[in-house]
Amino acid sequence: MAANFRSDNETPVAPEILEALARANSGTAHSYGDDALTARVQRRFAEVFETEPAVYALVSGTAANALAVAQTTPPYGAVICHEDSHLHTDECGAPEFYSGGAKLLTLAGAGAKIPAQTLKSQLENTGHPGDHASKPMLLSLTQATEFGTVYALDEVRELCDLAHAAGLKVHMDGARFANAVATLGCTPAEITWRAGVDLLSFGATKNGAMMAEALLVFDSADALELGRRRKQSGHLISKMRYVSAQLDAYLEADLWLKLAANANLQASRLSAGIAALDGTELLYPVQSNEIFVRLEDSLAAGLRAAGFEFHGWPGRPGVYRLVTAHCTRADEVDAFIAAAAAVQQR
Amino acid sequence: MAANFRSDNETPVAPEILEALARANSGTAHSYGDDALTARVQRRFAEVFETEPAVYALVSGTAANALAVAQTTPPYGAVICHEDSHLHTDECGAPEFYSGGAKLLTLAGAGAKIPAQTLKSQLENTGHPGDHASKPMLLSLTQATEFGTVYALDEVRELCDLAHAAGLKVHMDGARFANAVATLGCTPAEITWRAGVDLLSFGATKNGAMMAEALLVFDSADALELGRRRKQSGHLISKMRYVSAQLDAYLEADLWLKLAANANLQASRLSAGIAALDGTELLYPVQSNEIFVRLEDSLAAGLRAAGFEFHGWPGRPGVYRLVTAHCTRADEVDAFIAAAAAVQQR
Amino acid sequence: MAANFRSDNETPVAPEILEALARANSGTAHSYGDDALTARVQRRFAEVFETEPAVYALVSGTAANALAVAQTTPPYGAVICHEDSHLHTDECGAPEFYSGGAKLLTLAGAGAKIPAQTLKSQLENTGHPGDHASKPMLLSLTQATEFGTVYALDEVRELCDLAHAAGLKVHMDGARFANAVATLGCTPAEITWRAGVDLLSFGATKNGAMMAEALLVFDSADALELGRRRKQSGHLISKMRYVSAQLDAYLEADLWLKLAANANLQASRLSAGIAALDGTELLYPVQSNEIFVRLEDSLAAGLRAAGFEFHGWPGRPGVYRLVTAHCTRADEVDAFIAAAAAVQQR
Amino acid sequence: MAANFRSDNETPVAPEILEALARANSGTAHSYGDDALTARVQRRFAEVFETEPAVYALVSGTAANALAVAQTTPPYGAVICHEDSHLHTDECGAPEFYSGGAKLLTLAGAGAKIPAQTLKSQLENTGHPGDHASKPMLLSLTQATEFGTVYALDEVRELCDLAHAAGLKVHMDGARFANAVATLGCTPAEITWRAGVDLLSFGATKNGAMMAEALLVFDSADALELGRRRKQSGHLISKMRYVSAQLDAYLEADLWLKLAANANLQASRLSAGIAALDGTELLYPVQSNEIFVRLEDSLAAGLRAAGFEFHGWPGRPGVYRLVTAHCTRADEVDAFIAAAAAVQQR
Repeated sequence: MAANFRSDNETPVAPEILEALARANSGTAHSYGDDALTARVQRRFAEVFETEPAVYALVSGTAANALAVAQTTPPYGAVICHEDSHLHTDECGAPEFYSGGAKLLTLAGAGAKIPAQTLKSQLENTGHPGDHASKPMLLSLTQATEFGTVYALDEVRELCDLAHAAGLKVHMDGARFANAVATLGCTPAEITWRAGVDLLSFGATKNGAMMAEALLVFDSADALELGRRRKQSGHLISKMRYVSAQLDAYLEADLWLKLAANANLQASRLSAGIAALDGTELLYPVQSNEIFVRLEDSLAAGLRAAGFEFHGWPGRPGVYRLVTAHCTRADEVDAFIAAAAAVQQR
Repeated sequence: MAANFRSDNETPVAPEILEALARANSGTAHSYGDDALTARVQRRFAEVFETEPAVYALVSGTAANALAVAQTTPPYGAVICHEDSHLHTDECGAPEFYSGGAKLLTLAGAGAKIPAQTLKSQLENTGHPGDHASKPMLLSLTQATEFGTVYALDEVRELCDLAHAAGLKVHMDGARFANAVATLGCTPAEITWRAGVDLLSFGATKNGAMMAEALLVFDSADALELGRRRKQSGHLISKMRYVSAQLDAYLEADLWLKLAANANLQASRLSAGIAALDGTELLYPVQSNEIFVRLEDSLAAGLRAAGFEFHGWPGRPGVYRLVTAHCTRADEVDAFIAAAAAVQQR
Repeated sequence: MAANFRSDNETPVAPEILEALARANSGTAHSYGDDALTARVQRRFAEVFETEPAVYALVSGTAANALAVAQTTPPYGAVICHEDSHLHTDECGAPEFYSGGAKLLTLAGAGAKIPAQTLKSQLENTGHPGDHASKPMLLSLTQATEFGTVYALDEVRELCDLAHAAGLKVHMDGARFANAVATLGCTPAEITWRAGVDLLSFGATKNGAMMAEALLVFDSADALELGRRRKQSGHLISKMRYVSAQLDAYLEADLWLKLAANANLQASRLSAGIAALDGTELLYPVQSNEIFVRLEDSLAAGLRAAGFEFHGWPGRPGVYRLVTAHCTRADEVDAFIAAAAAVQQR
Repeated sequence: MAANFRSDNETPVAPEILEALARANSGTAHSYGDDALTARVQRRFAEVFETEPAVYALVSGTAANALAVAQTTPPYGAVICHEDSHLHTDECGAPEFYSGGAKLLTLAGAGAKIPAQTLKSQLENTGHPGDHASKPMLLSLTQATEFGTVYALDEVRELCDLAHAAGLKVHMDGARFANAVATLGCTPAEITWRAGVDLLSFGATKNGAMMAEALLVFDSADALELGRRRKQSGHLISKMRYVSAQLDAYLEADLWLKLAANANLQASRLSAGIAALDGTELLYPVQSNEIFVRLEDSLAAGLRAAGFEFHGWPGRPGVYRLVTAHCTRADEVDAFIAAAAAVQQR
């Protein structure tokens, strides 16, 4: 048995969500979000987040992030984010394009997390030298991070407080938000608006949807004309009911948390197995569904020869990423570990 | 029996396409288009168009159009299009945003078609006064047009020739391309690259897909780094197989043309019925699946009271638009006509 | 004697302004506007306009206009302006570029003036169809207009009232503002903020400066971070004292109005002389320093052969523009008329 | 005697240049660069650089840099530059704005110089991961650098070779180009196009002009429609003769090199004097007209109390910058050193 640990982007759609798409396919429905499913999704988000966020359904996480930037950050503004954030490294300049020229100010920090002290230093230099420097307008945090770690509640609160005190809004890139919530065991409200997050890119695609994300804005005053920005960027889907059907099923009866819990569980199982192998090194605490590990080349090659798929990490020889997902099974994980042991015994 | 003639955007997904999505939902597949279905779609487009276009699958027609503009038109450039084109009136400035500041130069013309003579006059003024004016770089034609008319082959050829002679590229907005091809009875190649079209927004969503469009670039030299533009705008779908599955089914065994043929047929039936009513006036030749008609207010109100849905046209009192689609049935059309007659006899 | 009536852009600098530049050239001065001359210019504008506008000194009228657009109009917004406005026809898309994608909605009107009724109709269609259309955010008026006409006070007031009632700001492109004020005999305050104008591009270059303009914002709340926009666009001049020196001299002792009064007077003299010639036709009332006139080709050719310089108007055969300026002399005007008479008698 | 060592931006205009402006102020001249002085400047640049560059006169160094970026770097592109470059730290995002969303990839290096090895490593990571990362299109070098150091000829050559091999163009930010050439004793051609530089921001303002810069493009194929970009950004000055007059005088009889030589000489004299003081530390080799030095707070305060002006460096307590200029006199330098000695003896 082989298995694919390349990316949660490569997984199929959860059965509940595929069925919801089929159910939605009946008769006509008003387009561009003026339909019953979209209204229901709005209510579901209100329940899940215990508030009434403005909800913009989307089909792309890059679009969610870039719209959040455009909405908060003018061309002369800047976004503070981690140097390893998806926003900075993997979106081909979408934030810069959507904002019309804003600058990303990147900070270092272990495990792709921004340390409060680092943010503090950055903010203290904010504003100088007058009109000559881009003005920080937004702090973007990733939860769970690019390296699979998770910010604790008090970490998010402290970062938000620092940002707000300096006049910035806070965005959370939640492409793997479900995994973080499942890890933290907190409510979605606690780790977002109650902690100070103003906008959330709520991801569903990696965790079992087909193509469905949402940009949530917790204070509607921050969402002024965001609908026009969505349209102008080509992200207002005409047959919106099919995006909403996915989100509706995803949020129903905590499906999203159940799917994420499985991904996290399998990551724990997989990382424990890997840690027990000779000559491996986990680079970061495994707090969600991603594992970054140093492997001997011969081991990596042997596993690939056995049919297991996973990525080497660009620019870091000997480092590999393994991603589990909503559909990963324990027997796939066990097969990987067994295969690794077999390679090492040769 | 009532029926919805508001928009082809409000229709459900064709069964063949929904089934294709379910079939695609098996196991993992590489993301971002590096999958077998996407490769097959590329081959299908090559067959359908009898050439090897660069194909960029998308989920939004606005994105297809805006990327075509960005790819051909720098910030200091201009796009020549019809004043009633979707590009100008319904995309909230997407072409201007994607290009970073290009200008749309709009031309008038009956039935939302650009007359060759009007284009000629515009082009003769092109270039003056030096660096002070935006430089026309692209002609955008809509096929079928916003008003449901269709450019004949020789009309497309003449417009393309004029544009090329002045150094412009030609884009075709084919949100309803299938309807136009079904009407013309020509090959897709004849009405596009053989006639001089350089880029085609190939629509599928309105004609039976869930959310699937494609930007086709007939000369690969014109597609340089278009992949990065797609990513930067947030339009590179991660689980691409689900866009490709739709396009694959749409193109298989001429499904797309069969669906469009039905829409066109029902539009003919509907327009003939309407024309036979007292006091109605068809505004444009009905050449695809849209009917623009002047109705007495009492008739429109009576039909709506009977449960039929259709749009009044903004800014033009007394004018209504009726749209048929891939799934419109003859009995729905007949019911509309019968209801209209009943209203008039009251 | 020949003379140049091509453009006020081709004139030399008024002696008072050149002397001011020489006077400013003493010792060091803080850069980027933190100097005494710039502070004095701020005070002069406050006196001239009887209020405390935010003042942004610039060296380019296109920059002043484009910054006004960027400051008021987001990428999804639209600017309403005349189809013959400089903003639309001669700035190579600067408003679209600076705003990141806003659209210019152009209106027709005799003499390059926007009729109130035309604006009213446009605004009544504003907002439809929801997120699909660019949202009008700014009305831009040109005073004096591209065709040398001038809006009366009550015309400006009515247009501003209509715009404000629809939620738009009002910008005045005053590249030839001095000429308009000289014609109207009103105060600068009356024709701007008291009439409802929110932002003014105050031109000096055409009327005797070397390169000096200013963007005035009458309500400082509308000027938020405009300084950063000026810097980001490369328009914050480092040795600002040399821009301010020009504006200081220009505003001192009503020099600007004296220079404009001469330009207007010579335009009156010139247009009266031309009107008296056989076969000529003035196209618009001559209300500032520009004359648009239909001339027989032979007359135009004869005058050019005699050394007089002036432009034919692009796209309008037989139409010529003559521009007088701050430095135009009566003997130059008389020489032109005499030469014209001589040509006609041959 | 006090003196201002804050910035070369705060200096007056060299007498030769002010006189040239007065001489230019005679009669009319065609606008927008169609004048005799502008043609002469083109010839002067051809002589000075021993080639025929495309020359775009400007009034702002930020504009020169930003236009160079826009011309070479599409929205999905990236510019490689030093983390302390003016382009990145002091232009409020002008490169990002002008390019419509390009990203600056910043490199570290002592004295604000990019080490070849650092560039090499960056370029080797170029291109990964496909469409997800901004594509490096331009290397921007600053000569002399922000910290007053100068790249040697072979350093420039090596960096250009690396960039070209990876498909990038090379831009040189020459806000203080004259100072670098005066230091190197090479020809302008040697340190630019002969070494591989494709575009040069040629500064004059800091070194004695009023407001005059030029963007030089050595291969005219790289300058396609740069004129329209200049216009669209509001940087085509209407009364161009007054920019050209400055550049003409600046280039005549090596005035520019003479002015820079004085600035450099005074910097040497000043840095030697400072180095001889107790408790000071020069941070970088003084190779042009800027000195970065660590001073005791009491010394800095004492000098300021004595009337000397200079900047502390933001974010680096105890570090000060002293800038000499074309007009700095030896007695000003000597007075500074004497005052410093006096402060230390108290």
